[in-house]
Amino acid sequence: MASNFNQYQHLDAFSFPAHLRGRPAWVVQLWLLVQSTLFALSPRFMYGWRRFLLRLFGAKVGNKVLIRPSVRVAYPWHLIFSEHAWIGDDVELYSIGNIRVGDHVVVSQRSYLCTATHDYTKRSFDTMVGDIEIGDGAWLATDVFVAPGVKIGRGCVIGARSSVFSDMPEGMICMGSPAKPVRSRNSGK
Amino acid sequence: MASNFNQYQHLDAFSFPAHLRGRPAWVVQLWLLVQSTLFALSPRFMYGWRRFLLRLFGAKVGNKVLIRPSVRVAYPWHLIFSEHAWIGDDVELYSIGNIRVGDHVVVSQRSYLCTATHDYTKRSFDTMVGDIEIGDGAWLATDVFVAPGVKIGRGCVIGARSSVFSDMPEGMICMGSPAKPVRSRNSGK
Amino acid sequence: MASNFNQYQHLDAFSFPAHLRGRPAWVVQLWLLVQSTLFALSPRFMYGWRRFLLRLFGAKVGNKVLIRPSVRVAYPWHLIFSEHAWIGDDVELYSIGNIRVGDHVVVSQRSYLCTATHDYTKRSFDTMVGDIEIGDGAWLATDVFVAPGVKIGRGCVIGARSSVFSDMPEGMICMGSPAKPVRSRNSGK
Repeated sequence: MASNFNQYQHLDAFSFPAHLRGRPAWVVQLWLLVQSTLFALSPRFMYGWRRFLLRLFGAKVGNKVLIRPSVRVAYPWHLIFSEHAWIGDDVELYSIGNIRVGDHVVVSQRSYLCTATHDYTKRSFDTMVGDIEIGDGAWLATDVFVAPGVKIGRGCVIGARSSVFSDMPEGMICMGSPAKPVRSRNSGK
Repeated sequence: MASNFNQYQHLDAFSFPAHLRGRPAWVVQLWLLVQSTLFALSPRFMYGWRRFLLRLFGAKVGNKVLIRPSVRVAYPWHLIFSEHAWIGDDVELYSIGNIRVGDHVVVSQRSYLCTATHDYTKRSFDTMVGDIEIGDGAWLATDVFVAPGVKIGRGCVIGARSSVFSDMPEGMICMGSPAKPVRSRNSGK
Repeated sequence: MASNFNQYQHLDAFSFPAHLRGRPAWVVQLWLLVQSTLFALSPRFMYGWRRFLLRLFGAKVGNKVLIRPSVRVAYPWHLIFSEHAWIGDDVELYSIGNIRVGDHVVVSQRSYLCTATHDYTKRSFDTMVGDIEIGDGAWLATDVFVAPGVKIGRGCVIGARSSVFSDMPEGMICMGSPAKPVRSRNSGK
């Protein structure tokens, strides 16, 4: 094993390649500054102001998308939000890849949508991205983790504290780590 | 499924009904301001000052309850703390419903007591609350999640990173997600 | 059970004994102030500045260790970092005990290395520490928890959201809560 050690040197772990970033590095730094001041310090009720700031940095954000001031966004230009979504406190939108959020989606507080990982089989430790898609009417309950490349079907409910590592089908209640569909959303009615 | 889509429109996800809030909206905004300044920026050792601020907003907080400045409270007027409790860094007291904490309780850093959920079977997506109760002498280790409506018995120990979705009996060591009692707290003595 | 209640009084839960802290209490308060200002507010690219601050407070930090401004450290004088490590956003280094991090280690965002626990079998609720060691070339993916006393072998990969409660062997992919080794890191090549 020791003789293989060099393979574990992560030569390229220290910065995202420019082609993933999609903007010059200074734009990212500027966004971080805006996020920690104008965005994060805005009073809770100023949802329109935060939509404006995100759009200024290239996000597509539909009408009545409500985003709390404590939400954090890696690259706003990778957000594609439809209408009437609600993004709760301390949600992390780690949008190295694209994050698509449908109509009437609710993402509850502390959830974490993560679009990037690393190729640990290579010394270059390449950053790999996988777009995330949340279907219309889905609800991610609190402290849900969504892994890179995952699609969550329309109307899905993901239980609190679940970790979603694979696609979830439409209209199901899903939970656990890794999350699995457990019953239809309509079954209890 | 597509024909059922309308059922997934969360018409009412955007604000807590006034009857849950129990105070005018401006009081919540004022508390948020106080929390992010006078409370959060106070030096660690000023435990009395933070008790004072919480009481000012209606919390019942007994003697020698020690609360770190990074703790966050949704509605202080829904906290009912006995004496000698310890609430660690970055604990979230999401007190849309009541949170009752007994004597000599220890809630370690990053734990998250969540009293609210949604009725996902209704288009109105009603917010539902469930009071949380932590019995005397219990210890919630780090990064524990407690779901709405859960009662944790006296003297219980909840293991690190556990998620508690159901009531836990007295004097037991409990762990996992969902947390289950695994042995008596006294068994190892 | 009720008659045993006194055993659950955590008489000593309120402060870390001086011998664990290893520095006067005012040094800890000063570090907290520095961390929340000079460290946390520094622009992302000022990695050298943050290494300087940590060394000023006694950390051993090798060349090209890259630490994000949102990383939090309990006691910097308990960090022993080799070279070329990368510590991502919002990582918590709860270094009541020592944290040793090898060459080319990557600790992804939101991970949490926790070196302290309590002896819940005693009324004194003694704080107990266990040093953490992360071997060369290991990668802790995002939101990984590492419990007190755990050693993670060289070249290990710990999957996202895992909780590590026991030592992990060299060169393995490990995941889950509690984390278990599931296959060799080289098996897929």
